[in-house]
Amino acid sequence: MSQSLDIAVIGATGTVGETLVQILEEREFPVGNLHLLASGESAGASVPFKGRNLRVRDVADFDFSQVHLAFFAAGEAVTRSFAMRATAAGCSLIDLSGALDPADAPSLVPEANPASLDALTAPYRLTSPSASAVALACVLAPLGDLLKPQRLSVMASLAVSSRGREAVTELARQTAELLNARPLEPRFFDRQIAFNVLAQAGAPDADGHISLERRLAGEIKQLLGLPELRVSATCALAPVFFGDSLAVSVVAEQPVDLERVRERLAKAPGVEFVEEEGDYPTAVGDAVGQDSVYVGRVRGGLDDPSELNLWIASDNARKGAALNAVQSAELLIKHYLSKILT
Amino acid sequence: MSQSLDIAVIGATGTVGETLVQILEEREFPVGNLHLLASGESAGASVPFKGRNLRVRDVADFDFSQVHLAFFAAGEAVTRSFAMRATAAGCSLIDLSGALDPADAPSLVPEANPASLDALTAPYRLTSPSASAVALACVLAPLGDLLKPQRLSVMASLAVSSRGREAVTELARQTAELLNARPLEPRFFDRQIAFNVLAQAGAPDADGHISLERRLAGEIKQLLGLPELRVSATCALAPVFFGDSLAVSVVAEQPVDLERVRERLAKAPGVEFVEEEGDYPTAVGDAVGQDSVYVGRVRGGLDDPSELNLWIASDNARKGAALNAVQSAELLIKHYLSKILT
Ligand SMILES: NC(=O)c1ccc[n+]([C@@H]2O[C@H](COP(=O)([O-])OP(=O)(O)OC[C@H]3O[C@@H](n4cnc5c(N)ncnc54)[C@H](OP(=O)(O)O)[C@@H]3O)[C@@H](O)[C@H]2O)c1
Ligand SMILES: NC(=O)c1ccc[n+]([C@@H]2O[C@H](COP(=O)([O-])OP(=O)(O)OC[C@H]3O[C@@H](n4cnc5c(N)ncnc54)[C@H](OP(=O)(O)O)[C@@H]3O)[C@@H](O)[C@H]2O)c1
Repeated sequence: MSQSLDIAVIGATGTVGETLVQILEEREFPVGNLHLLASGESAGASVPFKGRNLRVRDVADFDFSQVHLAFFAAGEAVTRSFAMRATAAGCSLIDLSGALDPADAPSLVPEANPASLDALTAPYRLTSPSASAVALACVLAPLGDLLKPQRLSVMASLAVSSRGREAVTELARQTAELLNARPLEPRFFDRQIAFNVLAQAGAPDADGHISLERRLAGEIKQLLGLPELRVSATCALAPVFFGDSLAVSVVAEQPVDLERVRERLAKAPGVEFVEEEGDYPTAVGDAVGQDSVYVGRVRGGLDDPSELNLWIASDNARKGAALNAVQSAELLIKHYLSKILT
Repeated sequence: MSQSLDIAVIGATGTVGETLVQILEEREFPVGNLHLLASGESAGASVPFKGRNLRVRDVADFDFSQVHLAFFAAGEAVTRSFAMRATAAGCSLIDLSGALDPADAPSLVPEANPASLDALTAPYRLTSPSASAVALACVLAPLGDLLKPQRLSVMASLAVSSRGREAVTELARQTAELLNARPLEPRFFDRQIAFNVLAQAGAPDADGHISLERRLAGEIKQLLGLPELRVSATCALAPVFFGDSLAVSVVAEQPVDLERVRERLAKAPGVEFVEEEGDYPTAVGDAVGQDSVYVGRVRGGLDDPSELNLWIASDNARKGAALNAVQSAELLIKHYLSKILT
């Protein structure tokens, strides 16, 4: 591609934003000017890109008409404050926070629902879904017509980095304190996360669901084109730095043909299928730092021939967020480059 | 109770066996002579009981006619080798390994299915179910008639201690190595468990299920008296020393009345219901060292009014194993003391 795009990354000092900048470089994304943005607190910090150190500036002062495309990776509140400003300036955007109305900024996982791009109009707005929804979509989209899923039950053991960089520091600090037999003083979390599992990755609403669980359920239905799917989701936090683990159970319309499931998974784009007997993928041992979503433990039901059980491991910050956003941008450019450049 | 029983604990040097000996003391179980048994390797070691240090002896040399009741907590192979010998000597037994035929040694959780004792004949044989089945039974038995469960989906994040004392040492060692930036050399597990989640707590069979998953499914159906229940189970290992966490989803026959579920759980014996808004129980923060099974995150389905979701935390070695076995013994004595003593 000879033409290049001017890009903004909002949240460039965060877990996802830093990875995003790395991936733009790794994949030789056609970046013209790159604007790194964060809050006033980080303004002046710098982030490496292609051998140079780029200064981070305050998003509040940013003129979005300077860029063609903005990645929003600074949380829901920041998207709510600045997405309209970007759109008004004619800037396309990919949001990673889930703050935008799905009708207005549909979820995209290039391996799962590329056709959803066709209905967009400029300036383009897309959502890169929650990390669990990205991983699930990569694995389940190729199985959709085979399974005709009726129910989906997901138990996600999320890495602490899914709560941002402060959560990573907190797990390291708590672990060191416990191993050194010092008294534990929780800070970022309200209780012990080291050598423990927390039942909910965020605060619950009045019905007891956390926003990530609702987000995951809504997104996976959209990504798979299955509005009637009955989803049950629990997003817990494990004492893991990076890499999500998902135990997944699908109830299909009919008895599941496991051989065909295995064939499909072995060929699925963006998916690494661990099929050796007795082996299985893990978040840290396999997925972290990789572009693929890993799947294993493919097995039927104990009592129900229409059930399929799976284990998924994926890098939450990479394929779950930054990489999927960049791949979405690549697809967007392929479709609409001329319109984005005007 | 003025009469006392002579007791053997097989596996007395292990995670469960040591806890069992402690609990016999704590609960003032009517112990006459206490025989602590293990393999030849530990013979000569000692374990404290009521202020004395009792010697551990080799089970291979033990004469079971010396005791009224034996607790088997040394793994399936040991139960298979010695349970018949115990029965032939007229000794009643409670097995914790799951090696015995359920028809011959039914699963008992006193809070869930005490009536199952009525059908036994001397010498008595009982199974104390897997830790996850004990926890699930305590929580679901009081809800049975309310829910009429059709499907049960369980994702268990088990503590490494569920794999025995060597697994505990291994998690500590790996964690220390990683925090000290030393190269990781897995020993007990075949890969990194520190800051990681392993997809299966044991080796899978030809269908991909591990024995703990099959055990859990079979036991929970028996404990709840629901042979038709469709169970899906994943037993993963979290980097947690003690305390299991279970994400549970039940599909009921009809829309779930959450208020009545909460009322029942608040009154359920052996269950601690964490109902404060936003709060939830954890394995380490709540359950470990406690006699109760903790439950929280009681919520309906996202898409299905007939669904109930729960989070359970329980001490795998205590209520999940040793305590349940001792409580089962207490109930057995209450029913059949005179027959056990003859
Ligand atoms: N982490 C994941 O695995 C993951 C996966 C999928 C989606 N996401 C989503 O991605 C977003 C970022 O998550 P993260 O994990 O990268 O969080 P993070 O590590 O905590 O980083 C947050 C970033 O947002 C910036 N920020 C915070 N408040 C701001 C403000 N008022 N104005 C401008 N910038 C602000 C921070 O900049 P300062 O340095 O100035 O504080 C930082 O760059 C969230 O919406 C999250 O839900 C995360
Ligand atoms: N850990 C849990 O949370 C849990 C929960 C429910 C049920 N269970 C079941 O309880 C049993 C014990 O588990 P654990 O976690 O306590 O294991 P553990 O910590 O590894 O201890 C194993 C015990 O068994 C003894 N043993 C091993 N091989 C033996 C042999 N050939 N002859 C005699 N004794 C032998 C060991 O004695 P030495 O010192 O001589 O090796 C030790 O006392 C298992 O069947 C397990 O499935 C465990």
